[in-house]
Amino acid sequence: MKFIDKLLIAGKKNKSLLCVGLDPDPQRLPIKDVLDFNKQIIDATADLVCAYKPNLAFYEAMGVKGMQILKKTVAHMPREIPVIGDAKRGDIGNTAAAYAKALFDYYKFDAVTVNPYLGYDSIEPFLNYKTRGVFILCRTSNKSAVDFQDTVDNFGMKFYESVALKAGEWNNHDNIGLVVGATYPDELKAIREMCPRMPLLIPGIGAQGGDLELTVKYGIDANKEKAVIVAARQVLYASKDQDFAQAARRAAMELRDSINRIRGL
Amino acid sequence: MKFIDKLLIAGKKNKSLLCVGLDPDPQRLPIKDVLDFNKQIIDATADLVCAYKPNLAFYEAMGVKGMQILKKTVAHMPREIPVIGDAKRGDIGNTAAAYAKALFDYYKFDAVTVNPYLGYDSIEPFLNYKTRGVFILCRTSNKSAVDFQDTVDNFGMKFYESVALKAGEWNNHDNIGLVVGATYPDELKAIREMCPRMPLLIPGIGAQGGDLELTVKYGIDANKEKAVIVAARQVLYASKDQDFAQAARRAAMELRDSINRIRGL
Repeated sequence: MKFIDKLLIAGKKNKSLLCVGLDPDPQRLPIKDVLDFNKQIIDATADLVCAYKPNLAFYEAMGVKGMQILKKTVAHMPREIPVIGDAKRGDIGNTAAAYAKALFDYYKFDAVTVNPYLGYDSIEPFLNYKTRGVFILCRTSNKSAVDFQDTVDNFGMKFYESVALKAGEWNNHDNIGLVVGATYPDELKAIREMCPRMPLLIPGIGAQGGDLELTVKYGIDANKEKAVIVAARQVLYASKDQDFAQAARRAAMELRDSINRIRGL
Repeated sequence: MKFIDKLLIAGKKNKSLLCVGLDPDPQRLPIKDVLDFNKQIIDATADLVCAYKPNLAFYEAMGVKGMQILKKTVAHMPREIPVIGDAKRGDIGNTAAAYAKALFDYYKFDAVTVNPYLGYDSIEPFLNYKTRGVFILCRTSNKSAVDFQDTVDNFGMKFYESVALKAGEWNNHDNIGLVVGATYPDELKAIREMCPRMPLLIPGIGAQGGDLELTVKYGIDANKEKAVIVAARQVLYASKDQDFAQAARRAAMELRDSINRIRGL
């Protein structure tokens, strides 16, 4: 099954555009065992999400042990829920192929995030996995996104718009999506208009301060789908106590339902 | 000791601008044990290089076991030789901090490569490790580098030139370098002129076809230093047989000496 179909089916089944970011910070966890924490979060929210998104940085920071936790976390996922490996990799051809092998063959992610700075041949090895999804960084959620992504070229086009345009050209296998930060609603609106059929992965609500109403309104496609709205800290750390899984469930349900109200479901 | 000093001291001691890229591909190795292969390559070349550069992709492709090999490979390095973790990471602030922790605290790299697409706050957590080096991707060696890096902005400046310029502005701790591909000598020349004192990490000779003479000529600074010229496949796979370590030594020595002849040493 293609990634986009798996995403849409999970989203329909769970009536959800919510993606939980599994970014465990050992300093903030209510229990010591990170894998057990992840499993409890997954078990408590699996009927409320359209996807999960572990960011590899948090696992790499735990060293080799962290990579074991990551692999076991992905293995614990319910089969029908797509898992997006947020890796933001970008390297030259043969090296990109090694990263694709790691992320798709070893960790078994359904989709990944990649960085466009090195151009097409750095993304092609990922695209060649036709049943997997590839979210290209377009307009990121951080403050310094403006440093380069807003640079206007001599055709009057902003850099992130060029990336969105190229992504459309490269989408021969219909497996490309874009990463767009919720913290920049105008840019999100512009990108959705440029790419009406692409899935958008949208981090930046919650801790980062993105407006949920505008995020949903501008992020969804004509069918009120294909926006993958990420919440991490807001769900993971909803409670600092032993009831963290139930609290995460409540936070996830609230978010899912708010998103659905906004999209008129 | 600051990274740049460690780099210069190693380069002077070994009379070398050569950096061996430790990118083991299990399919191409003459022996089965990847760690043993790395150790033999290091032992055979440690007096001929100014640095080593493992690219994380090749270790990640081997899964958790690969990350153990990476950690043990770094631990095996002679103390006086700087090790550059070629990771090309780029993520938002708190996530970038987790990557910096992984690369600097856990794997103990002396320097890393990072991607500029997300702007300053994605690089700052790395820069805050003042004694470590941070090589920012500027003009990469691959064919598709032109896709975005050559885009001309409305001030007439190419994107990679903006990156070089910003890198200069951000260099408060004097720990920034740039990655520039040997396959684009004109761009290398332009970047060296813009950044006369920055170390340049230059992959792309050998298998990728970059011209050694122009690379050295345009890459070095006024003191004929601060060019870190990378060779990987050319050294690692100099022989497919059991004499691979001696063959790697011969290939590394030849390259080092060619570089020195060109820079007039």
